[in-house]
Amino acid sequence: MTQLEQAKKGIITPQMKKAARAEGVEPEMIRQGIAEGKIVITQNRRHKSINPLAIGKGLRAKVNANIGTSPDQQNAEEEIEKLRMAIKVGADTVMDLSTGGPVAEIRKAILAESTVPIGTVPIYQAVVEAVKRKKSIVELSVDEIFEVIESQGKEGVDFITTHCGVTRESLSRLRSQGRLMDMVSRGGVLTVEWMRYNKKENPLYEYFDRLLDIARHYEMVLSLGDGLRPGCLADATDRGQVQELILLGELTKRAWDKGVQVIIEGPGHVPLDQIEANVVLEKQLCHGAPFYVLGPLVTDIAPGYDHITAAIGGAVAGRAGADFLCYVTPSEHLRLPTVEDVREGVVATKIAAHAADIARGIKGALKKDIEMSRARKKLDWERQINLSLDPERARNIRKSSLPADSDVCTMCSEFCVIKKQR
Amino acid sequence: MTQLEQAKKGIITPQMKKAARAEGVEPEMIRQGIAEGKIVITQNRRHKSINPLAIGKGLRAKVNANIGTSPDQQNAEEEIEKLRMAIKVGADTVMDLSTGGPVAEIRKAILAESTVPIGTVPIYQAVVEAVKRKKSIVELSVDEIFEVIESQGKEGVDFITTHCGVTRESLSRLRSQGRLMDMVSRGGVLTVEWMRYNKKENPLYEYFDRLLDIARHYEMVLSLGDGLRPGCLADATDRGQVQELILLGELTKRAWDKGVQVIIEGPGHVPLDQIEANVVLEKQLCHGAPFYVLGPLVTDIAPGYDHITAAIGGAVAGRAGADFLCYVTPSEHLRLPTVEDVREGVVATKIAAHAADIARGIKGALKKDIEMSRARKKLDWERQINLSLDPERARNIRKSSLPADSDVCTMCSEFCVIKKQR
Repeated sequence: MTQLEQAKKGIITPQMKKAARAEGVEPEMIRQGIAEGKIVITQNRRHKSINPLAIGKGLRAKVNANIGTSPDQQNAEEEIEKLRMAIKVGADTVMDLSTGGPVAEIRKAILAESTVPIGTVPIYQAVVEAVKRKKSIVELSVDEIFEVIESQGKEGVDFITTHCGVTRESLSRLRSQGRLMDMVSRGGVLTVEWMRYNKKENPLYEYFDRLLDIARHYEMVLSLGDGLRPGCLADATDRGQVQELILLGELTKRAWDKGVQVIIEGPGHVPLDQIEANVVLEKQLCHGAPFYVLGPLVTDIAPGYDHITAAIGGAVAGRAGADFLCYVTPSEHLRLPTVEDVREGVVATKIAAHAADIARGIKGALKKDIEMSRARKKLDWERQINLSLDPERARNIRKSSLPADSDVCTMCSEFCVIKKQR
Repeated sequence: MTQLEQAKKGIITPQMKKAARAEGVEPEMIRQGIAEGKIVITQNRRHKSINPLAIGKGLRAKVNANIGTSPDQQNAEEEIEKLRMAIKVGADTVMDLSTGGPVAEIRKAILAESTVPIGTVPIYQAVVEAVKRKKSIVELSVDEIFEVIESQGKEGVDFITTHCGVTRESLSRLRSQGRLMDMVSRGGVLTVEWMRYNKKENPLYEYFDRLLDIARHYEMVLSLGDGLRPGCLADATDRGQVQELILLGELTKRAWDKGVQVIIEGPGHVPLDQIEANVVLEKQLCHGAPFYVLGPLVTDIAPGYDHITAAIGGAVAGRAGADFLCYVTPSEHLRLPTVEDVREGVVATKIAAHAADIARGIKGALKKDIEMSRARKKLDWERQINLSLDPERARNIRKSSLPADSDVCTMCSEFCVIKKQR
């Protein structure tokens, strides 16, 4: 029986207990959330080296970091460094999106090294391997696509993005309206290439039950991808995007009926005033399934600073009820991120998630803020640094500019208001 | 006659025309906003080297950068570098908060060099000069305090922060509730020191008309400071803060009656779910006067990243109607900012302001985003870089990791979705 099936039967599993402890909530709350589909517990049956992670309603918003090689940047060791950095600064999950070099080996190394759940986009491996065999994505058989998914389940991947909602119907809606940026999801575009060449429906939609069987077997969470997500503000919340979301809602029910847990992926590029509506829409159309957003980015004109653009959108989405925030790094739209970019991206998104948790009244969310304020009031610098989201960064900044009086900092020096009010 | 008096009489001044042109709006819209107190036009009569800047209702949200020395960091040249950097990356105004070294000379150099309006906190100069004469702030006479303000008006300072709302009444409300962090405004704390020692009411409150006469004479905008702003999330929106805001609303009406333009300063540290309420409160209690917020910071635990914490709060405040966003830098709570910190702080706050402008439907706000999206669709990298908020940063990141195929970037390389959909 899967976690979802057990939850429905009223069984509290060891995984639920562990996840509840990590969240500081009652196991029954986790069980109920899973039974309703509003919480997922993320851990492949075979991925024993990690702790099960609960994502969803009433819980702390979670942060994902994307890592992985590209054809231009194939340094596998650097990806392991990125994994370590992401975990060090607080990522709750990591997705390996490798598309360059020996992607299967890189993934295995990441799965072995990680202490947090690992997600993937299996279609990437399928296409990389096709290219290696001098084939195109379009020549892959349906069986070959499912074999890749199966192999990743067997290896222990905890959650997978599958672009099941990129269908003839959603594509036709996308085209009837037209778009400035067309599609920007790699998995979505690869799917469309395959569909067009083979003149067939999306196999992950047509044979969705086959996908469910694999996910069920390995207890992989299905992260239903938003292949039609907007790639710029002007394209946000359009027919194609919303049509896909309707389909994902239908698939969610089918997954639940087979005991498979589901997360719904969301945009992308969204103006600040449309973010809450996007969250409400997902919660309604997808029956409360956890919402996993990419940013959203609230402007298109800040390359070099898109971790900030995404943190703004993520905080607002989180406050509105988004459960899972995918980071964006300062390198977005410019290059594959570096290890330092991973640090910046994770911390920016942690800030967004934490600000949302406080605003939503998540139990204990404000505790660290209160402790920090007490440390500030005491001018206890060591404690301030240790309570920081990134103590290393805070320490280095302070060390770079030491005041004559070690009680204060060089911003105010002798005019320090805290010292004055003692 | 002041700008406000002329606006009330239906006169469109050359300053209003210039500011309207810069905003892309009708001069009559600016005039009407000024007449109602909902827009200010910022330019000291004597500060001829800058363009008049309009701030307020229906206009693009503006960004301020704080610069200035401290007793520990007295390098005047570096402050000029910070001024140049702030303007280069798009600050609309700069405040010189110098408290170290020859503060009057530093200010004069900044006023001469700047192409944007300059703000100050005159009480800082008063206290620095008192300390130089081996006196304490508390020994300053009321005349000496007003003389400093007068001298700064004469020099051409465009807007000044005065903590007029720190009064016996607001302090008593603050104390009746109690606080985790007490006061965190330097100007506010200096005022309290003076009041306590001299057993007198705040002179800027008691002799508010004298302040108005000076502001009126030089056409300085009064930025009514929030001396009781919260210094941590736990203290937000408390009695002291709201009592001060009530007083500032009363003073606003008095200023308008004397033809003086007013901006209201706001917090500070505010949980995400209280930001909109803070904006609504200011707009109601202060009769629609422009709202100038510091951040707000949406968590206390991110030293090293407070430009991001502030950008989240600023975007949400801006969307709710805040007109003027003061930046926060990555060095906040740790040290005096560097030139690079100024860059990061200004760009982060520009992102917040721009995201808010788009959400509020400010005319033309989305134009650059659409142009950027078109450049992305064309894979026109030079244009993408030039349309960026910080082209230098975007260019350097791209240059650091060049793809084999110059059409794409190293994130996706040959799997570039845009190239695939051509």
